[in-house]
Amino acid sequence: MHKDKVIMTGERKQGTVCIFGTGDFGRSLGLRLLQAGYEVVFGSRDLKNSALVPKGSKVMTHTEAAQMAQVIFIAVRRNHYDFLTSLTPALEGKVLVDISNNLKRGQFPQSNAEYLSSLVPGASVVKGFNTVSAWALQSGALDASRQVLVCGDDPKAKQAVVDIAHSLGLTVQDRGSLRAAGELEDIPLQLFPNWRLPLWIATGLTAFVLLYLLVHDVTYSYVEDGKDNFYRVMISLPNKAFPIVALIMLALCYLPSILAAILQLHNGTKYKRFPDWLDRWMLSRKQLGLMALALASLHVLFTFVKPIRYYFLHRTDSDVIEQIQENITEPFDNTAAWRSDSYKCLGVVGFALFLLLGITSLPSVSNALNWREFRFVQSKLGHLTLVLCTGHTLLYGWDKFLQPGRYHWYTPPAYMLALVIPCAVLVLKLLFITPCIHRRVSRIRNGWERPGKSRSEHATVPMDKATSL
Amino acid sequence: MHKDKVIMTGERKQGTVCIFGTGDFGRSLGLRLLQAGYEVVFGSRDLKNSALVPKGSKVMTHTEAAQMAQVIFIAVRRNHYDFLTSLTPALEGKVLVDISNNLKRGQFPQSNAEYLSSLVPGASVVKGFNTVSAWALQSGALDASRQVLVCGDDPKAKQAVVDIAHSLGLTVQDRGSLRAAGELEDIPLQLFPNWRLPLWIATGLTAFVLLYLLVHDVTYSYVEDGKDNFYRVMISLPNKAFPIVALIMLALCYLPSILAAILQLHNGTKYKRFPDWLDRWMLSRKQLGLMALALASLHVLFTFVKPIRYYFLHRTDSDVIEQIQENITEPFDNTAAWRSDSYKCLGVVGFALFLLLGITSLPSVSNALNWREFRFVQSKLGHLTLVLCTGHTLLYGWDKFLQPGRYHWYTPPAYMLALVIPCAVLVLKLLFITPCIHRRVSRIRNGWERPGKSRSEHATVPMDKATSL
Amino acid sequence: MHKDKVIMTGERKQGTVCIFGTGDFGRSLGLRLLQAGYEVVFGSRDLKNSALVPKGSKVMTHTEAAQMAQVIFIAVRRNHYDFLTSLTPALEGKVLVDISNNLKRGQFPQSNAEYLSSLVPGASVVKGFNTVSAWALQSGALDASRQVLVCGDDPKAKQAVVDIAHSLGLTVQDRGSLRAAGELEDIPLQLFPNWRLPLWIATGLTAFVLLYLLVHDVTYSYVEDGKDNFYRVMISLPNKAFPIVALIMLALCYLPSILAAILQLHNGTKYKRFPDWLDRWMLSRKQLGLMALALASLHVLFTFVKPIRYYFLHRTDSDVIEQIQENITEPFDNTAAWRSDSYKCLGVVGFALFLLLGITSLPSVSNALNWREFRFVQSKLGHLTLVLCTGHTLLYGWDKFLQPGRYHWYTPPAYMLALVIPCAVLVLKLLFITPCIHRRVSRIRNGWERPGKSRSEHATVPMDKATSL
Repeated sequence: MHKDKVIMTGERKQGTVCIFGTGDFGRSLGLRLLQAGYEVVFGSRDLKNSALVPKGSKVMTHTEAAQMAQVIFIAVRRNHYDFLTSLTPALEGKVLVDISNNLKRGQFPQSNAEYLSSLVPGASVVKGFNTVSAWALQSGALDASRQVLVCGDDPKAKQAVVDIAHSLGLTVQDRGSLRAAGELEDIPLQLFPNWRLPLWIATGLTAFVLLYLLVHDVTYSYVEDGKDNFYRVMISLPNKAFPIVALIMLALCYLPSILAAILQLHNGTKYKRFPDWLDRWMLSRKQLGLMALALASLHVLFTFVKPIRYYFLHRTDSDVIEQIQENITEPFDNTAAWRSDSYKCLGVVGFALFLLLGITSLPSVSNALNWREFRFVQSKLGHLTLVLCTGHTLLYGWDKFLQPGRYHWYTPPAYMLALVIPCAVLVLKLLFITPCIHRRVSRIRNGWERPGKSRSEHATVPMDKATSL
Repeated sequence: MHKDKVIMTGERKQGTVCIFGTGDFGRSLGLRLLQAGYEVVFGSRDLKNSALVPKGSKVMTHTEAAQMAQVIFIAVRRNHYDFLTSLTPALEGKVLVDISNNLKRGQFPQSNAEYLSSLVPGASVVKGFNTVSAWALQSGALDASRQVLVCGDDPKAKQAVVDIAHSLGLTVQDRGSLRAAGELEDIPLQLFPNWRLPLWIATGLTAFVLLYLLVHDVTYSYVEDGKDNFYRVMISLPNKAFPIVALIMLALCYLPSILAAILQLHNGTKYKRFPDWLDRWMLSRKQLGLMALALASLHVLFTFVKPIRYYFLHRTDSDVIEQIQENITEPFDNTAAWRSDSYKCLGVVGFALFLLLGITSLPSVSNALNWREFRFVQSKLGHLTLVLCTGHTLLYGWDKFLQPGRYHWYTPPAYMLALVIPCAVLVLKLLFITPCIHRRVSRIRNGWERPGKSRSEHATVPMDKATSL
Repeated sequence: MHKDKVIMTGERKQGTVCIFGTGDFGRSLGLRLLQAGYEVVFGSRDLKNSALVPKGSKVMTHTEAAQMAQVIFIAVRRNHYDFLTSLTPALEGKVLVDISNNLKRGQFPQSNAEYLSSLVPGASVVKGFNTVSAWALQSGALDASRQVLVCGDDPKAKQAVVDIAHSLGLTVQDRGSLRAAGELEDIPLQLFPNWRLPLWIATGLTAFVLLYLLVHDVTYSYVEDGKDNFYRVMISLPNKAFPIVALIMLALCYLPSILAAILQLHNGTKYKRFPDWLDRWMLSRKQLGLMALALASLHVLFTFVKPIRYYFLHRTDSDVIEQIQENITEPFDNTAAWRSDSYKCLGVVGFALFLLLGITSLPSVSNALNWREFRFVQSKLGHLTLVLCTGHTLLYGWDKFLQPGRYHWYTPPAYMLALVIPCAVLVLKLLFITPCIHRRVSRIRNGWERPGKSRSEHATVPMDKATSL
């Protein structure tokens, strides 16, 4: 029995792995493979590189190294791939893992992995590991993604690579055939692709509102009253612009599902593709919401800092001195107290709920929710947040909209601009939860179609997304 | 060698998968399978549905489709399952994956998967994928759980489903035999089951304290002094009620482990089951704590908003005007400065620690801690937080408890109610860390039993939980 | 075909697992194995323990139990291992899983698993599961790590353990041969090893700055002016010390990569090991940054609480009363307004960015970023945060550095101390992004070496780390 054990160890499943190239990634990978019990051989043109490789591994010529292992990681740059053609006999039947990345998208017409496959047609090329950094491999993957994406045409070759990834403690996602290699090579080059649109919207809106406020508030009082209030650009104006943009962007999260429902009602079927802009909009809702939360947080910080600002302290002092000098004492105004406390209360509770929405959109939290719970938070609590924040703005305004003196140069105060879209969204939403419309939309979403509709196109947007209305 | 590769590709491991039904889930699953390199055939009654299915897949009759694959996903509703009986010969020996969910719990006496198994006894039924949404499948599972739960009586059939899940980049948890199917079908119907009890406690306590404050603070001053302070219901009263309830709930997190230790001392053994209510309470501690954190955060926000409230500004103005009119200047009161700064300092540090506790209970953070670290944070830092927050409340009260004028209508100020449970918990905890009691409890937790104790029942609560005392 | 299914069930892949010991971990593991469809037998000296084990499992003598299964979990303490020598014939060829932990590091010269292997040489020992708690096993691993680390000399034995872990829904990381067992046994004994250094730095710096402030601010005014300001130790002094230490520690996050670049320039190669202290410093950057964020958050909380502190309210009241009594009204000082708003604006925006950095360092968030995105956030946004926070401090100081009255007892105000390191880091960083130096560093990092350099040692710090400059 003991003998049997020795034999098993002899045929170690964790066999030998070969790595071509002794660069950063090659060495980090080699170290990790050694730790996981593999034998590691490096193939290198320059055998004096052996001082660089992790202890326990060997450095050989490419040909020698290739003969030692079935799986060979190609840790050299694409522009050096051509030397592999000379190794064709040694690479025949081997599994070559292309781990390379490019410097920018579309740098080459053909993906690196497909190019490699065309150079060495006798080997099975698998694309993989390119989304994992050398750093992540070394540090035990605490700080970076543990998911390896692989693709390749040969299932057995792919399985060999998947087995290696698993024994390094990584998870694997199979992305199909080698045609997907270009896609995988693009992933590490992305820089927040989903955040582009929301970022542009936030920047554009904020710039517009700041300019509007600069004219409506500061320039107006300079031109008309000669008062120099330009110091307000530091805090006062941002603290008006940020909540305005945040409220608009929060409303923009809930508008597309209403538009989708209107489209479905109009089409009389759910089996019709939504226009592309609506699809993109729906996919950006999370980012729109988080951007709005960031702006709302800035609003909160700026507001809390207000009572220690020089301008605020000077104004309250002046108020008191004025009352003393005119020998009057302003009586306590109960309405003012109600108004002041009401809009602040709505603001605080609205912001707290908004924070809760933000927390539940953290990947590890949303992963712990089932679909029903996620929908409950993002739809029910989300709409409640919108109601509270809109109410906060309405009560903040109070009766200002009735005071002609507020309409400087015939333009309304900025907060009114903030209310248009949120109020429209809430009114439409109210319409859609009336029984008669709700029933019709539900029927369509359960597959009912108005007679005479042809299913010419298939809906790529799944029902789930639309029903988050 | 090259030939060999072609042969391997011929016997592609990623074979053909069949899906019955062309609904949202079926199509999303089909698309994902295609991306992972599978051949996909849909079985449908209505062959014109072919326009709907993802490109690259085929639509056939159910019988034809079933013959193409070993694994068949049943993506139709339970009330349509009966058509499967007519396909019995074609389904003989196949693996049927039941992915269905119900609309509410206990809708049917038998789970869908067991019902399916009874309809097609010649096939091996595996329950699975029902906790994954179509949306999660399409979006690459970024925003929703990547874990597939499976159960089934046939290990080989289960393995085939597990393999498919793995190649879609999902992780799998085996839940045993098909008898567990009912449980799996209930999971997507849950709506925060662990949050129910803490939510009820928070709501009930808050309602009670708010009412108490309404009578003790606002109604009292209206009846006795004729002052209309009802505007206080917006911020002042919640800002007293929330911290009171938060402190009580924080103390409730640390009470059950003390009760458990008392029970173990009394029983003289750890091998006796705790009463059910104590078990449930222990399992709710995380939610109790997070609910308390939410209320504490509201308290902080309401407090920070105080200096810009109308009532506060009016009161400070009145104070100054009064001093001027009476021609006195209040001297700086060093004791008042110490008191004011001390209780605020304790509050700030206590809240910061509380936030830290909240952050470490995020799944991705607590996963990165080992058991000893998790215990250190939740027990040591948790008790420190309780000490700081109780101190904050005690110093806030200062000598109010000595002033008879504070006991309106013979009831104490509300903050005193808040102190009862936290002080009791801290006193008991102090007792339990005295060497003589600590030693006795440790001995019991290491397995020692008082002579004459019988181990009639087994303890389902593991030691770990109780030792977080 | 139906018959075939019965046969498959007969040869259930989920076979029988044996557990020696009926303690907490043994029972929790047994319950979980039962749920996953395994047969479970417990080996115990005391057969009356059968009342304790989960329903569905059996209790037998050790010898009987060992004969039932291929894999045996040893859930007893190391000091009881010696009884296993008497079972040698029964354990011949079995897989023994050592799940034990010690009470402190280096308790025994040999790891528990290697000791076990020496006691029962005929069995294959696998170390594993020791980093998972009984509680995590029972609660479905929601609150604790789902990763099992294994090591062992026999790949087949290891694979058997890996398979079991997978079917319990756990992920596995292979740590190589049994020599790694000591390392695995140390993991559960660690208490925040990476946080030690940053914690010491934070504590030391804070203590020093607090002492400095106590002398410079409070004692000075007591000795020179006879004013008793000692109440300031509660909030005012911490609220000066925390931001000072936070700013210094934030700068310390960005200093090591500059030092690394200087070293590389000096060495003329990247293939030379960094000194150990620099390596350690680089690995602590995340913790340094989070500690700085915690202190910055305390600064923010203390600042927001300022306007409701007694001392602040008394001072503003006194200001007004003084103005009244002297019958003057301070005019609005535009420069003061600009200064006050500017430094607060920089502080708010800097803190918001700092929070964003903190959020992206949550494991689940950083896992969702690719390497380029992570670098963008931590390097670009990180340096921007440092610029904003340094600017905040500079503007806070304004022209204080010109006022001789601020230099109490010939020492500068404390905020000036805070500025030394951040300004130095920013100046050096500016130098390093000038084209001529940047080009030289890039060349070295791409592998270029100054002629005459020998690669005597290999660089264990991968390039990625250094390039986060």
